Order: sequence, then structure tokens, then C-alpha cells
Amino acid sequence: MSSFDYTIAIDAMGGENSPKKVLEGLSLFLKDDNKIFFNIFGDEKIINSLLQEKIILPKINYRIINCSTIVNDKVSVRDSIKVGKDSSMWKSIHSVKDGKSDLIISSGNTGALLVISKLLIKMIEGIDKPALAGLWPNFLNTSIVLDLGANIEFNEKNYLDFSKIGAELFRVIFEKENPVVALLNVGSEEIKGHEELKNSYAQLINQKNNFDFHGYIEGNQIKDGLADVIITDGFSGNIALKTAEGTVNFINTEIKKIFSSSIFGKLCYLISLPIFEKIKKNLDPRKYNGGIFLGLNAPVIKSHGSADSLAFYYSVKLSVKILRGNLINRIKKNFLNV
Amino acid sequence: MSSFDYTIAIDAMGGENSPKKVLEGLSLFLKDDNKIFFNIFGDEKIINSLLQEKIILPKINYRIINCSTIVNDKVSVRDSIKVGKDSSMWKSIHSVKDGKSDLIISSGNTGALLVISKLLIKMIEGIDKPALAGLWPNFLNTSIVLDLGANIEFNEKNYLDFSKIGAELFRVIFEKENPVVALLNVGSEEIKGHEELKNSYAQLINQKNNFDFHGYIEGNQIKDGLADVIITDGFSGNIALKTAEGTVNFINTEIKKIFSSSIFGKLCYLISLPIFEKIKKNLDPRKYNGGIFLGLNAPVIKSHGSADSLAFYYSVKLSVKILRGNLINRIKKNFLNV
Repeated sequence: MSSFDYTIAIDAMGGENSPKKVLEGLSLFLKDDNKIFFNIFGDEKIINSLLQEKIILPKINYRIINCSTIVNDKVSVRDSIKVGKDSSMWKSIHSVKDGKSDLIISSGNTGALLVISKLLIKMIEGIDKPALAGLWPNFLNTSIVLDLGANIEFNEKNYLDFSKIGAELFRVIFEKENPVVALLNVGSEEIKGHEELKNSYAQLINQKNNFDFHGYIEGNQIKDGLADVIITDGFSGNIALKTAEGTVNFINTEIKKIFSSSIFGKLCYLISLPIFEKIKKNLDPRKYNGGIFLGLNAPVIKSHGSADSLAFYYSVKLSVKILRGNLINRIKKNFLNV
Repeated sequence: MSSFDYTIAIDAMGGENSPKKVLEGLSLFLKDDNKIFFNIFGDEKIINSLLQEKIILPKINYRIINCSTIVNDKVSVRDSIKVGKDSSMWKSIHSVKDGKSDLIISSGNTGALLVISKLLIKMIEGIDKPALAGLWPNFLNTSIVLDLGANIEFNEKNYLDFSKIGAELFRVIFEKENPVVALLNVGSEEIKGHEELKNSYAQLINQKNNFDFHGYIEGNQIKDGLADVIITDGFSGNIALKTAEGTVNFINTEIKKIFSSSIFGKLCYLISLPIFEKIKKNLDPRKYNGGIFLGLNAPVIKSHGSADSLAFYYSVKLSVKILRGNLINRIKKNFLNV
């Protein structure tokens, strides 16, 4: 009998500064919660040498499974499958397929992670396409936005499926009984948008949902927090997310540039340092780390490639919340009679 | 013989605080440049009473054409056409059709402006769909992004047409001989994106263009300024633009909130006031005011509904730059043999 609540497969090798940041993130997490066991997939030699240095992981909470290759971040999806079966990514996903792990986290190549997960873990019956969901800060709290780029093509059923899936995810993460779901569109009137969107709107407004349907919202309304779950096609969603990230970077950089362009500015910055620290903490993107692939028979979590150890820690916390909330079973119940 | 270089039709009634902000914007502009004549369409009584108060417009530079109705900002496009022919929007567009004005500027209902303009001014032969282009700040200078929402559906020819049109617009506004054009996509590799995008890429990379083709860029690369002209479908473009606007608002509001949440913070803000003024000036969105409808036989400029007098002034400046650069003839030359 296991004394652990859940087992998580960790692809320790993908992204920047791996596996160091991954192990540090796990170390941080295990200080909070020791009821989780980790199957760590990667280069055993590198991982062990790191664990002999400064990073403390309780021996009871993990085992290392040596993998001879890694899926390169820059490689095409096709090539990643060829590298395949000995890679830390493939093996960690496979351990979920085998029932040895309940969930997998990877900082590696997003396209490869999605394709291999779909291949091995398979879609939930009744759901056609997986979605990539992400956390998005707003004035009131946090929204969930999906799809952020798992799909390029999109149809009406996807909008309807993702509404149900997204509502379950929000319910599990934020413990709100009736999440508010909205469709992202170019206007808020009923007649706006393309046919797939209008047909989805018509269905969602008329059918009984297990969430509150808000109708359409526009890109500038995401921030308001009136919708908990925002449904979009993967193409627009990916462009919206990356444009928002670019905008944050643009503003931060411009503000820093102006403060540092004069001695007076530098002085103002020094005096205001505690305020800037607070701003940095409040707007810290690491809290929102962790893309969630939904629609598969197990949760697959994508940590940002450039995430650091604290950001990785947040993605582990998110993963455990999803497991404890029994997300997959909740989603499956929505598609039993489809 | 006219002593003016160009005549601009002004729909003085749409948007917030009109016609006051419109007249103030024109007054600002005429201090810079008195070679432009304005046909001002709107409620003659209100306009005259404003001009008898504080707003100074040289009498030689304008005439007022009284209009009995206005197109409401909230009205549907269909209803706007019904209100129609006596509205300041309709009449100002009609004066371009009649050859009495060279360009029209409106702060009114965007959908109505687009539909009525298409109806009266008509598309340039060889171009299927109009595009809404906008200015987008980046680290190096300013980009032009189109389409920002004139169209919901999109095909390959639109991408190709908009590349040509966007390049001409950039050439005229920023006086760069060979603008760099890129397609907005969800990845930068050749195999990314949907069929229309991939086909457009293949054509643009193989054909002789009157611009440098950069390939794909992602949403987070708009800020880098490596592409002068960024081509996107109207649906994604509109969502990207509004999401960026919402993100700017979100960050500004959060920063203000933290500075004003303590006495120390308020003090820091006061000390740093000259720095914040500089930031505000550098990032002032009013400098980028003016959506440009392209593909019609005359330029149609949409000033933001919430724009103030300075923002309106910038849209007039932009309009004059477009006229002096002979944009429409330059665009037409691209479609002579189509």
C-alpha cells in the first residue's frame, strides 16, 4: 500500500536550465506537501550529481528513471517522435499510459509533448480535440483561457466541448461552483463573429449547461474578470497570449529605460524600490506558469521553457490541485452519453 | 483655383465629446499646416456656437455642412444605413464620392463607417476586401498591423493583397523604400499555421515583391520592430489589438494601485512625477490614433471613439501624410494588371 496520494511523472530534461530548476522546484514543493511521489525521468548521472550538491529531495519521495536522450526544444514534432522512445519526454508520458503515474509535467518542446501525449494517453471518448488551457490574471482574480494553441482548425463542437472542460478545470482550481464561461469574439453583439462562433453561441444560450454562459467578450475585457473561463480557437488564442506577453515586456522595458536614463530617474527608482518589489511580486508571471493539456485521459502539464525553479514549483502545485480535484473524472462525466 | 493642397471631409459628430474634440483637433492642426481645407459635417448650430467660444479655426480653412442626424455609436450597421443619408457620416463619405473631398475622417461607429464607405467609395479594382490598418509601437519605431477587424473571413488573396497595400502605407507614412513585411502566425517555422497562411507564405517567398518578405512572426515579436508591416486576418488581428490594449490598461492600473495604496507609495510617486510624466508621454497611445481603411478608392480614417482633441489632431496629421504621399495611386499601381 502506497503512503502517497498521487504519483507525478516529471520530464526533468526540457527547457532552459533543466534539470536543475526542475529539481529545485520539486524540492520547494516537497517542503509544502510530502504526500506526492515523483517519477523523475532524465539523465541519471546529472540528476544524481545535482542531488548530491545543494538540492534536497527526501529519498522516499522520488525515484530516478534514466533516459538516454532528450527531445530538443527546437526539433520538429516529426523528428521528436523519431528520437522518441528513449527520451525523457516519451518515457515520462509512457509511465502515465502504464498507470505508473497519474499526471506528467514537462518543460520541453510543446508540440512534441502534445503529439506524444495524444498518441500514448489518447483522447477521452466523446472529445475530438485536446485544448491547451492557461491561467490569465485579471482585476478580480484569475481566468482560464483555452485553447491557447493546441489546434489550428476549429469547429463548433470544439467550442462546446472546451466550454465544458474549461468549466470543470476552473471549478477544480478555484473551487467555484458555477463558473462563468464566455466566448472570445471581435464584438459583444450576438451577430458578431464567424459562423462556428455564432452557432456555438446559439447552442450555449439555449442548452442547459453546468456553468453560467456570459455570451461574447472582446480581447480588452479579459482583464475585467467578468468571465472565469474564456473560450477561443487555438490560432487566435495563441496570438492573443503571445501579444499580451510581448506587450507586458514592451511596457516593462520602456519604463525601466526611462527610469535608468537619468541620475534623477535612478534615484527615484532606488527610493521607490520597495514599491517596485511589490509590483514585481503582484504581477509575477511565475504564479501563472503551467499550460494544461485537456481532453486526454490524464492531465498533461506544460511548464514554460524559460520558467525558473519557483515557476516550476507553481506548475507542480497546480498539478496537485488538478489531481486532488479529480479533474479527469469530472470531465469524463460530461461526455458519458455523447 | 484652390490655394489648398487637399480637402478633407470631417464627420464631426461621432464618438465621445464630439464635435468639441474634433474642432479642437482641427484647430491644433491648422496651427501647423494651413494648406488643408476641411468640409465639416455635423450640427451647424452646435458647431458654430463652439467656434464662437474658445475654439479658433481660420474661416478660410473650412465650411460647415449642416446634417440633421448622426449615426449612433451603438446602432447596428443595418440601422445606420437606414438613418443614413442625412447623417454626418453618410454626407461626409458622400463628399469623397462626389470628388469634393479627398479623404474622410470619422470618430463614429466603425462598422457603419466601413459599410457606408464601401458602398459609396467602392473597392479599388483588383482588391477583394478592405482592411483596417493601425499603427503599433515597437522598440525601434512603429509598425503597421492589418487587418485589425474589417473582415471575419479571410483567404490567401487577402493576405497577398494586404501585404502590397500595407507596404505602400508604410512607405508613405515612414518614408522607407523597402518595408519589411511579415505574416502573423502561431510559430515561426515554415510548416506552422493553417493552409491559407502556408500558401501565402509560399507565394510571398517565391514571387518578386515591392517589399522585403520576412516570413512569419509570432505575437510576442511584434514589439521587436523587425517587421514594419504585419499581416493578419481580421479576426485574430482584432483580438490581438484589443488584448494588447487590455493588457496595457491592466498593468497601468495595477502599478497605480500599488503606488497609491500607502503613504510611502504616494510620496514615491510625487518625487518621481517628472519620470512618470516622461513615461506617459513616451507611451502615449494618442500618437497612434487613426485606423486606416485601405482598399477603397479613397482613404477613410477612423479616429478612436474615445480619442481626445490631441488624439484627433494626430489622426488629421496621419491623414495629410497619406494624402501628400499619394497613397491611393501607389496602391492602385499594384493592381493594374490583376
